Amino acid sequence: MPMFMDVHHGMTGITEEQLKAAHQADLSIEGEEGVHFQQAWADPESGTVYCLSNAPSREAVQKIHERTGHPADEIHPVPLVV
Amino acid sequence: MPMFMDVHHGMTGITEEQLKAAHQADLSIEGEEGVHFQQAWADPESGTVYCLSNAPSREAVQKIHERTGHPADEIHPVPLVV
Repeated sequence: MPMFMDVHHGMTGITEEQLKAAHQADLSIEGEEGVHFQQAWADPESGTVYCLSNAPSREAVQKIHERTGHPADEIHPVPLVV
Repeated sequence: MPMFMDVHHGMTGITEEQLKAAHQADLSIEGEEGVHFQQAWADPESGTVYCLSNAPSREAVQKIHERTGHPADEIHPVPLVV
């Protein structure tokens, strides 16, 4: 299944609890679009959040993020991993 | 040790071999700055590469990337991981 890295901007000041809650919200419905969010990393200072997922498409990733209230600003397929 | 996500732009068309070679070059000298590059993901279409590392500082990450010929365009500390 293709892998995607999506990026959220403007999340300045995000806390560990907020990141966990957002990730948990995604996990709770991800199966409905065949997505699996593997991991997420946040930089509260610049307000940047990165999410790594396996998904059938970019659109599937965005559907989940939109339904949980945090649409991604960028979604990149990352077919190369090392 | 702090974790960082760095981003490279303009790598359009990067191949698996090139990503591996760049990562291997980083790994070969990373210890000199106390850095460890964990993983890297590339989107050849948009030319974006993401590298996840543990490092003492943003500057240490950049020193390694500069010495191996591919300075990062952005380096974000990512203290929150889920």
